[in-house]
Amino acid sequence: MTIHPVKGIRLATVAAGVRYAGRDDMVVIECQAGTSCAAVFTRNRFSAAPVQVARQHLQQTAPRALLINSGNANAGTGEQGTLDAVQCCQLLANNLGCNVTEVLPYSTGVIGQYLPVPAFEQAMPACVNKLREDSDAWDRAAKAIMTTDTVSKLFSRKTIINGFEVTLTGMSKGAGMIRPDMATMLAFVATDAVIEQPVLQKLLNESTALSFNRITVDGDTSTNDACTLLASGAAEMSPIAVGSNEYDQFFTALTCLMQDLAQAIIRDAEGATKFITINVSGAATEDDCSAVAYTVAESPLVKTALYASDPNWGRILAAVGRAPVSEMNINQVSIWLNDVAIVTAGKPDQGYTEEAGQKAVAGADISIDIRLGDSTKSVTVWTSDLSHEYIRINAEYRT
Amino acid sequence: MTIHPVKGIRLATVAAGVRYAGRDDMVVIECQAGTSCAAVFTRNRFSAAPVQVARQHLQQTAPRALLINSGNANAGTGEQGTLDAVQCCQLLANNLGCNVTEVLPYSTGVIGQYLPVPAFEQAMPACVNKLREDSDAWDRAAKAIMTTDTVSKLFSRKTIINGFEVTLTGMSKGAGMIRPDMATMLAFVATDAVIEQPVLQKLLNESTALSFNRITVDGDTSTNDACTLLASGAAEMSPIAVGSNEYDQFFTALTCLMQDLAQAIIRDAEGATKFITINVSGAATEDDCSAVAYTVAESPLVKTALYASDPNWGRILAAVGRAPVSEMNINQVSIWLNDVAIVTAGKPDQGYTEEAGQKAVAGADISIDIRLGDSTKSVTVWTSDLSHEYIRINAEYRT
Repeated sequence: MTIHPVKGIRLATVAAGVRYAGRDDMVVIECQAGTSCAAVFTRNRFSAAPVQVARQHLQQTAPRALLINSGNANAGTGEQGTLDAVQCCQLLANNLGCNVTEVLPYSTGVIGQYLPVPAFEQAMPACVNKLREDSDAWDRAAKAIMTTDTVSKLFSRKTIINGFEVTLTGMSKGAGMIRPDMATMLAFVATDAVIEQPVLQKLLNESTALSFNRITVDGDTSTNDACTLLASGAAEMSPIAVGSNEYDQFFTALTCLMQDLAQAIIRDAEGATKFITINVSGAATEDDCSAVAYTVAESPLVKTALYASDPNWGRILAAVGRAPVSEMNINQVSIWLNDVAIVTAGKPDQGYTEEAGQKAVAGADISIDIRLGDSTKSVTVWTSDLSHEYIRINAEYRT
Repeated sequence: MTIHPVKGIRLATVAAGVRYAGRDDMVVIECQAGTSCAAVFTRNRFSAAPVQVARQHLQQTAPRALLINSGNANAGTGEQGTLDAVQCCQLLANNLGCNVTEVLPYSTGVIGQYLPVPAFEQAMPACVNKLREDSDAWDRAAKAIMTTDTVSKLFSRKTIINGFEVTLTGMSKGAGMIRPDMATMLAFVATDAVIEQPVLQKLLNESTALSFNRITVDGDTSTNDACTLLASGAAEMSPIAVGSNEYDQFFTALTCLMQDLAQAIIRDAEGATKFITINVSGAATEDDCSAVAYTVAESPLVKTALYASDPNWGRILAAVGRAPVSEMNINQVSIWLNDVAIVTAGKPDQGYTEEAGQKAVAGADISIDIRLGDSTKSVTVWTSDLSHEYIRINAEYRT
């Protein structure tokens, strides 16, 4: 995939020694003056220190730089954690010649350990010296933010809006503790489009709802989820206004990119061998569709059956049946595994054969379609299977 | 443990060949005329055929016999499943000389396969001939209802009520697809106490709320959950009335037995290496305590950490923080791992050491105490860890 640099956005990475030896683990993203910034954060009540500091800084001013580290989440670290996050921001601000509130901190990694601030201090000047706008810098940054990820997640696209070419490039990380709640794991998206902050925030909220808020690995919402969208305004165009055709065009391009980034997290989910798309439609509300989709997506029994390529549809049925929705007429429920009907109008499909079921779940991409009734409401959620490797990774995570 | 027979209750088992070779897989429990029966069933909307038939039969008359099979759940089997369940009841009724509605069916095992009715037909006469009241019959029955269970769950106690000796004996089965929702996995409890049906049902409801409704292995509510309480009335005593001291005494004895049976399911949970007690207190409502307790109990990350004997308390903190409760003041949250304080008033406890944490989770019995505020509300939930063995069992279940 070709990665397009984003005018006005420069990146740099360095091996600061936060936790990992011999690899980059610190990233600085600098944006030109006038860049708009939108962000969404975790709704976990125990949000990490960097999330709290980033929220506060965003309330005061638009950022000039983002400071990201992997290997240490600076979560569950109390007041010391907040002081550490602010101090790291100050170190970067000193090197860039900006105000501390113009730096947003992001951390990902182990929870409950203090940030090694001296490591940041030592690495900062070299990192700032390496700031570049080119695609290699994006590539290195996407790798440096990885923790249990096995591949970096970096996507890029160009779109023509009203005759002007606009670039969107973004990266994400995450493989476990994944069920973003109105936010995401760490993701950073940048564009050169001209978009003022309130419009950019609206675009990000709507796009997040259809991408990062539609994935789950294990149902565990992280303390550090954050997704940030920068618009440098370097493209030659008029500002994008809410309700315009330009808005719709940009929204589509942004949502495609965000879905690429979100789905890449599921494809790289801890121990995943399957990529599972669950579409639920026809319930009275979108919330009910979502509740059923997540109940199936997070059922350990559904996930282990799919890991075994076993079309054990009884487990899907049982998960649908226990989903926390106020109303469900089981005589209207139909379920397909890929295109194989397994349940029709609440009863085992007459034409179903075990052979067809096995074929449906043999591959690495599996879709489960669940129709609950006649409404036009619909929600799609992406998830992974539950494997031995997931247990190994998470049993050994801190050792 | 000494198993006390229950006067008026006879049991028999037989190897009917429902699914397993060379082991008993069918149980008949016969109760004397005048026995009261109370039952609670799964709230999974896709309840299995035997659950639907048992509910219908209970509405018409008190049962004279229960018919139980393991290896096949007769769930997701549509109308044929209902016909099959009724036909098996009829077979037993013919052999006992009672009405078909006086037989309650119970099935547990694989979902989505039809019941082999001819196997029931062939095995029924021999089974009925073997009906006995002795403790060996209870022991064989507890073994015959097992599926992925590795040990049978059979408990017994005597209690003196108003000068009269009363016996309570019960068995349960279950190791996976365990999160009973206002019901249980299969459990059968019998007593010789004299208790009329409405009182017995009230006792069972209240006792279930404190036992089977307080356990979870994987959050997956089964389609076949059922708990049945028989009171033969063979003891020399007056009927137990609601609100009496006798009611309270019986309730205590019953709840102890039910908790023994429920906790035995967790100790034998699929792949379990740890028995985890989670107590949550101090929230505004009991529902909020419960929501937090289940969020922690079903977090794959908490469960894998405990499997690894890793005091990764950040994962507990993250689970508490994402629990679906309307209000939580994180400054009032304190958490203990066994007796080691890990979080105090929302902050990492100053006295916590990794060494103390490791010691706390080294054993097989771990308690997590979470205090959310000042109220006197409190809920205790029991769960297991998530291990390689859980994945193996559930990936290979149908092979």
